[in-house]
Amino acid sequence: MQACVLTANGPQFEADYPTPPCGEGEVPVRVITAGICETDLQLIQGYMGFQGVLGHEFVGVAEDGPFEGQRVVGEINCSCRDCEWCNADLANHCPHRSVLGILDHDGAFAQTVNVPQENLHLVPDNVSDDEAVFTEPLAAAFQIPTQLDLDSFDSAVVLGDGRLGNLCAQVISQAGCDVTVIGKHEEKLSIIDELGIATALLSDVVLERTADLVVDCTGSPTGLTTACQLLRPRGTIVLKTTIAGDSGPSLAPVVIDEMTLIGSRCGPFDTALQALESNAIHVTPLISTRFRLREVEKALTAARTSPNLKVLLDISSG
Amino acid sequence: MQACVLTANGPQFEADYPTPPCGEGEVPVRVITAGICETDLQLIQGYMGFQGVLGHEFVGVAEDGPFEGQRVVGEINCSCRDCEWCNADLANHCPHRSVLGILDHDGAFAQTVNVPQENLHLVPDNVSDDEAVFTEPLAAAFQIPTQLDLDSFDSAVVLGDGRLGNLCAQVISQAGCDVTVIGKHEEKLSIIDELGIATALLSDVVLERTADLVVDCTGSPTGLTTACQLLRPRGTIVLKTTIAGDSGPSLAPVVIDEMTLIGSRCGPFDTALQALESNAIHVTPLISTRFRLREVEKALTAARTSPNLKVLLDISSG
Repeated sequence: MQACVLTANGPQFEADYPTPPCGEGEVPVRVITAGICETDLQLIQGYMGFQGVLGHEFVGVAEDGPFEGQRVVGEINCSCRDCEWCNADLANHCPHRSVLGILDHDGAFAQTVNVPQENLHLVPDNVSDDEAVFTEPLAAAFQIPTQLDLDSFDSAVVLGDGRLGNLCAQVISQAGCDVTVIGKHEEKLSIIDELGIATALLSDVVLERTADLVVDCTGSPTGLTTACQLLRPRGTIVLKTTIAGDSGPSLAPVVIDEMTLIGSRCGPFDTALQALESNAIHVTPLISTRFRLREVEKALTAARTSPNLKVLLDISSG
Repeated sequence: MQACVLTANGPQFEADYPTPPCGEGEVPVRVITAGICETDLQLIQGYMGFQGVLGHEFVGVAEDGPFEGQRVVGEINCSCRDCEWCNADLANHCPHRSVLGILDHDGAFAQTVNVPQENLHLVPDNVSDDEAVFTEPLAAAFQIPTQLDLDSFDSAVVLGDGRLGNLCAQVISQAGCDVTVIGKHEEKLSIIDELGIATALLSDVVLERTADLVVDCTGSPTGLTTACQLLRPRGTIVLKTTIAGDSGPSLAPVVIDEMTLIGSRCGPFDTALQALESNAIHVTPLISTRFRLREVEKALTAARTSPNLKVLLDISSG
């Protein structure tokens, strides 16, 4: 099959990659469309040391199991379903897990991806393929309200105007929080403006420490430092940024100002699909451009290039 | 007066440092005994860029005001008492504050330190000078139960067997938490053993991720990395370590495992003094050695040298 494979030499298109055999409980999914995520770009920089088929944002058609022939999206953590964490309904933290396209499991930049049946969710009929491919990052945004009572914050900042920043801002705004997105790109901010969410260019912002809550979606090692400059003492920072590299910023401000930092990763697919079904969240304005899988190297370059937001791979079109 | 002054050339004993004039609301305190803290050692390394008289752990005699002639200890944050933070009972976070011996205010490694009257607390008669000098670091340990419900944690680790680690372990243990102190120094751990608190040498520990709560008192940039290796996913890390330098560890594990990090700084003096008065916390075993102020450079070297714990400066003895 066609696949984009990350090796020690970087990501490469392979026209004849062997279709991997299904693991126990897994179902093959014929991928329709996949999305390129910041994490993919970080994996290419060495994050997690991953090698294999990239890709974890996708919509496809189940080729076996109870959803055979129907459109599905898939949660990315492949858990053992048998350990303390899985039994505590925290399978996303199973220490034995593999993760699609990220950790010990081939991903979705391929014509077929094998996914545990239990990870699959049917896509509602009125959710398009292009919308459905946003389920995974949108679920990650919806993880924030599962971790924090957003009603308790008067003033929130989402730092970063990229793909995830846009989605987090929509989720936080709809939860009733007064949110401003601060970013570096006028074009990306204008898409957020059009949703009725306040925005500001970082270069125009006076770094006053007035926010109760800052969500770091910068994908940059300097994100936390800027977050600390915007946050009130005793405020809360949600960390969404995972980046390659062994070092981060100094944590002295976190101690001095008694901040709370909360790491936030994968979230509820059901909530994300409901939001897409009800048009509560607008994702298609985020689509900047699209490529066929054989053009994946161009697609990855585009995903790194501002002002592009979401770059899609049309995989079923060959 | 005699004082230990930090300049760009490092800390120096001065036999004839000019006694600073009292600011508004301040009272001169004749220092009896002062303690050397890890923060002092970090200030010498460049932390906070401080220059002036070092020292923020002390007991002395008020020379003016309502406590004139009585033994006092002093909170270190000199706040404006007039801003939003001060009015919200969070004066320790006043953005206009100076901090004794740390930020824009001479400290207590001197024969006289000027302290806002509102910062002073009388020392109970049955609390010795040597005990009272621990009020400030013990209050910092008692800050943890003001920030977290310790009952909600099954298994806690205090990382670091030094001065602050010892005090935090005693506080957390007395709050009913099952706590183990992990450190690098048998001699320091044995003092904690004698308090009936479980201890382990880091080199003997299998780094399993079983703790619900880790308190980082290492004073080391690697502390957080080790904390992440001991913490369960979704666990809580209390950061007590402030160190010089612009970088810290990678925060990717915090995001992946959805940890909560809480910075923790100064705490309630009243609670600390009550614990000393009732002998609930044992501090004198922490005193390793003592010097006169004129020997401060030797004292600072001793404070850096394992297995020394608390090094005291006997200041009133000349």
